[in-house]
Amino acid sequence: MRWSGDGLVFEGVGARSEPIILDGDAKKGPSPMEALLLSVGGCMGVDIQAILEKGRVPLEALEVELEGQRASSPPQRFLTLRMDIRVKGPDEEQRAKVERAVQLSRDKYCSVFHSLQPDLKVTVAVHLE
Amino acid sequence: MRWSGDGLVFEGVGARSEPIILDGDAKKGPSPMEALLLSVGGCMGVDIQAILEKGRVPLEALEVELEGQRASSPPQRFLTLRMDIRVKGPDEEQRAKVERAVQLSRDKYCSVFHSLQPDLKVTVAVHLE
Repeated sequence: MRWSGDGLVFEGVGARSEPIILDGDAKKGPSPMEALLLSVGGCMGVDIQAILEKGRVPLEALEVELEGQRASSPPQRFLTLRMDIRVKGPDEEQRAKVERAVQLSRDKYCSVFHSLQPDLKVTVAVHLE
Repeated sequence: MRWSGDGLVFEGVGARSEPIILDGDAKKGPSPMEALLLSVGGCMGVDIQAILEKGRVPLEALEVELEGQRASSPPQRFLTLRMDIRVKGPDEEQRAKVERAVQLSRDKYCSVFHSLQPDLKVTVAVHLE
């Protein structure tokens, strides 16, 4: 993570990846706290996509919307996390499979989610579209 | 966070920010676990930059390198976190101020850091360059 010299804009790379921009002012890229939410969403998304593909559940679109409530005093960490998972492709008969994929990611596989504070209050809703 | 339809590539946006790309294969963007590290680095970086600016400590360059060790079995969460913070600008006489800024971010301000599992083993090294 390297400071750009411009305001609170930082550029970061993974071990062998293209860079991303994070911005403390949340304009030129997500803020670090938004990026934390996005890393949870990406992690859950990757798991869900992989599990549905393995289970031969058709997937046209997948979106994870996340919202966190923060403590009012420093360090203002996340206290709650709400996730809305929107899936297009599976029909109502396949709802159980989609919910099972979400549950597996949340309970067993999602490395990012399990790296967070265990007292975080989490609500997840699955929407078939 | 929206699936691109291409492998494990997801695009995410903050509330009013430019998008970032995360990639489960860690190529077109950082993986979600790398993005988690980058959000810690961005958060600490933003704090350190702001504290040094407030303290009128000259800053030419600031880099946060992060490495995490993961559990070997699912959910393979982070167990350790090592941070190397490289700062260019301050001289040796200002080292205490830089270390104080790092300490303040870590102990008091960094919202991302304090959203992580409290049992994470963390080591931080500050390098003046």
